[in-house]
Amino acid sequence: MITLDLILPDTRYPIHIGRDLLEQVELLLPHLPLPKVAIVCNETVAPLYLARLQQALAQHRIESFSVVLPDGEQHKDWNTLNLIFDALLSRNAERKTTLIALGGGVVGDMTGFAAACYQRGAPFIQIPTTLLAQVDSSVGGKTAINHPQGKNMIGAFYQPKAVIADMSLLDTLPERELSAGLAEVIKYGLLGDAAFLGWLEENMPRLRARDPDALQHAVKRSCEMKADIVGQDEKEQGVRALLNLGHTFGHAIEAGLGYGAWLHGEAIGAGMVLAAAASAELGWLSSSDVERVRGLVAAAGLPVKSPRMPLTRWLELMSHDKKVEAGTIRFVLLQQLGRATIQAGLPSAILEKILDRNS
Amino acid sequence: MITLDLILPDTRYPIHIGRDLLEQVELLLPHLPLPKVAIVCNETVAPLYLARLQQALAQHRIESFSVVLPDGEQHKDWNTLNLIFDALLSRNAERKTTLIALGGGVVGDMTGFAAACYQRGAPFIQIPTTLLAQVDSSVGGKTAINHPQGKNMIGAFYQPKAVIADMSLLDTLPERELSAGLAEVIKYGLLGDAAFLGWLEENMPRLRARDPDALQHAVKRSCEMKADIVGQDEKEQGVRALLNLGHTFGHAIEAGLGYGAWLHGEAIGAGMVLAAAASAELGWLSSSDVERVRGLVAAAGLPVKSPRMPLTRWLELMSHDKKVEAGTIRFVLLQQLGRATIQAGLPSAILEKILDRNS
Repeated sequence: MITLDLILPDTRYPIHIGRDLLEQVELLLPHLPLPKVAIVCNETVAPLYLARLQQALAQHRIESFSVVLPDGEQHKDWNTLNLIFDALLSRNAERKTTLIALGGGVVGDMTGFAAACYQRGAPFIQIPTTLLAQVDSSVGGKTAINHPQGKNMIGAFYQPKAVIADMSLLDTLPERELSAGLAEVIKYGLLGDAAFLGWLEENMPRLRARDPDALQHAVKRSCEMKADIVGQDEKEQGVRALLNLGHTFGHAIEAGLGYGAWLHGEAIGAGMVLAAAASAELGWLSSSDVERVRGLVAAAGLPVKSPRMPLTRWLELMSHDKKVEAGTIRFVLLQQLGRATIQAGLPSAILEKILDRNS
Repeated sequence: MITLDLILPDTRYPIHIGRDLLEQVELLLPHLPLPKVAIVCNETVAPLYLARLQQALAQHRIESFSVVLPDGEQHKDWNTLNLIFDALLSRNAERKTTLIALGGGVVGDMTGFAAACYQRGAPFIQIPTTLLAQVDSSVGGKTAINHPQGKNMIGAFYQPKAVIADMSLLDTLPERELSAGLAEVIKYGLLGDAAFLGWLEENMPRLRARDPDALQHAVKRSCEMKADIVGQDEKEQGVRALLNLGHTFGHAIEAGLGYGAWLHGEAIGAGMVLAAAASAELGWLSSSDVERVRGLVAAAGLPVKSPRMPLTRWLELMSHDKKVEAGTIRFVLLQQLGRATIQAGLPSAILEKILDRNS
């Protein structure tokens, strides 16, 4: 097991990465103010892992109850969130009852947001069960639900007490979900570590074959980079925005097609290709750089072409991006492979051209 | 105009108290990152004050749009909150668009919570229009909506950028609302300032007659005490809980009768009488002390008797209080008039007796 620390001005917390961690309750114990937890899960993950976690907790005399949510991005909304609040109240959960998110990014985002709001703030712990959640969404305290008009529009910055990334849980992950997680891994290479990008190009077949060492390296390097960036800028006043590479386009795809049609990681894969293409139009990347990005996204099993939508629809969807400032959409683009930057606005001729060629 | 400062570890903000402040846009300007604001109001306040505020803003080239909510505690729920999110998104509000709460405690609590959640945190300003909001709820950053099973169960600690208490706005306040606000004023005397309590006993007729000097003194003293206590304990880890005097009983009344049947301040009035009676049962207050509390609550035009509910119902409702710890209800009681304390648990014989005599 490797343990990283995310260090923030007001708090710090461990990110444990390794195999067979789910039943290691001693990793949870230091973070539980009361011997009572609420486990939030979804209907796909619950049959696989919920009983194992509850039994392990019971052996340490930790009382637990579970809330099982429907699975999928289309359920990341208020109605589903309210299932958590209803359960917490009907089971008399207190302000110091810990919520545990046992699931992927949707479960993690909703559990974190429920914890942020329940009695104005209850503790929570992330046990991510997908690659995407392990490398990205479980770390850093971004929590949210979607609004029909925009992804993650309603949420909070609210940090977990610990993140436990049990790589063994990836053994049951569907291939499509594995690929979706690889999108966020590629993102880290592109935005800040050219050497890691090269490693990913070499090792993509091992990753897709779930080689444990390769996966662990990918999770560790991604979490290291995320912890470093979030540690510098918890509330996204500056550098943290770079973690949104591919996300301005990607969120527009998700909202435009209807949440759940594409997985988040799939939308980010296609979104990163668009970001690379736009960067080339600005003269920052060469066409062979763009081909490298496209090749790596394809090698991860992800779509390289976005769905076709009129430019006006893209602009409408992107106008609700959280990085918009004074009416201008701010894009995360690549100055070179391994170095991202923020670009305020893009000429619509460029947008039209890259969307035409990549959708 | 008097200006108090609420000083917190990470931020500070002014509380301006005076007459004719609504159109003094220069009080708002230092707190607006963009020349665009969303004003949240309700259907009672909007016809009285919304146009005046919007015109004053327009004269300073501040663009504004409004969201008018239904009036009343029964609307302090997710559906009404969502009206704010819908309006923000359809008007392309950004992360730095400031929300202004123009209304009473319900509008302030919901606007603050919407600001806390919109794009994970937008700035907001409180312009309280009721006495209750001016002396209590607009200050200190407690924001929330209700859940059918418990008052203010879903919310956030999220501070405004400024509070502007324009006493002139109280000229149109219905008498019942004025009395409700006086409940929170009495609370400050009871929990921490015996001299102020004496002043209130002397000046209650002036307050109910809306003598401007008396009202201003009551608002100022209440805000001073709240700013001092919140400054010591923003997230209610300790002393801030004392501000909940009367609220454990009061919230049970509100949820038990259905939100909106009694005004919040009315429930707090009856709740403070119960807290005083319980304190007498523990030998802390004399029966003449309890009579003073009852007399002052009555003099404010507030109910001194709680509605009749079975003890089991009281206990069920109070079990969702945010101060519950490890299954024990923690009551704010009075060691003497002017000094509050936290008491973990009360024998049910005492509860039964005080409820029987005061409902």
